[in-house]
Amino acid sequence: MSDTLAPDEAAVVIAASPFLAELVKLIRAQDTFGRREHKSDADILKPFVVDKAARKLISIIDDPGPEVMARVDLFYNAAGLAIERRTGLIASPTIKLNHEGFGRAMLTTGRLIVFSKYHRDIHRFGFDTLQALAEAGDRIVGEAADLIGRFPEVANF
Amino acid sequence: MSDTLAPDEAAVVIAASPFLAELVKLIRAQDTFGRREHKSDADILKPFVVDKAARKLISIIDDPGPEVMARVDLFYNAAGLAIERRTGLIASPTIKLNHEGFGRAMLTTGRLIVFSKYHRDIHRFGFDTLQALAEAGDRIVGEAADLIGRFPEVANF
Repeated sequence: MSDTLAPDEAAVVIAASPFLAELVKLIRAQDTFGRREHKSDADILKPFVVDKAARKLISIIDDPGPEVMARVDLFYNAAGLAIERRTGLIASPTIKLNHEGFGRAMLTTGRLIVFSKYHRDIHRFGFDTLQALAEAGDRIVGEAADLIGRFPEVANF
Repeated sequence: MSDTLAPDEAAVVIAASPFLAELVKLIRAQDTFGRREHKSDADILKPFVVDKAARKLISIIDDPGPEVMARVDLFYNAAGLAIERRTGLIASPTIKLNHEGFGRAMLTTGRLIVFSKYHRDIHRFGFDTLQALAEAGDRIVGEAADLIGRFPEVANF
């Protein structure tokens, strides 16, 4: 379970991930009423961690609710910001999911699709551990930076 | 007004446009009850022609209804099919509009965005004449084919 991470270990994971840094900043920026002001970074990232035990409690088929859609938006927005921080180019997310939670998420820079993924069962969106969340986000940033390096003319179009 | 085109003239415009050919095919393919079977191609394209007089009757601010969203979908799907017919590569539309009718329409091939447009006031979507509709669609196809020719590696990614 994710909660087996000691607070110190969680802080290490967060400090090592450029993606998580952006995600934490985004969540705190939206915290206009200061409800999460006294929470640690690890605590405010908890809704993204859906471990096996938690996933078992989510029905297999369901329509995604606004909370999970907000998390998906945050995830891809944070990835876009981390890509911008690394490459200097804006990467904007386009997430088109139908009401059943099937669809496509893209990050685009100029005329280049720097990341593309088809999602299904988005109502079960989440990661086994904080580490897995960090790896998923940072992998997107890495892939995007590689593609931008390979096709700079398209990314700057 | 669009209706000033004689039936023969309309047929000439349609025959000259690869985009309109795909659009007509798409509309007829969706006509499962045969309601439009006895209508001419020019007649079934009429909902896409919103001339100045017709546009005056549409309120400036409004949420788009399902009919206009269906027309936007048809427009970009037909453009995608015409691009595929011309280049041999599938171009899939991604249209992400908020409930107010603001948003982005994209056509993508591999990792290349072959066409991108930000829309606003989508509830007023339409073209002054049949000729203008044909030109708008065929221009998208031309731009996309040019980009695919310029960045084949990205389009085939």
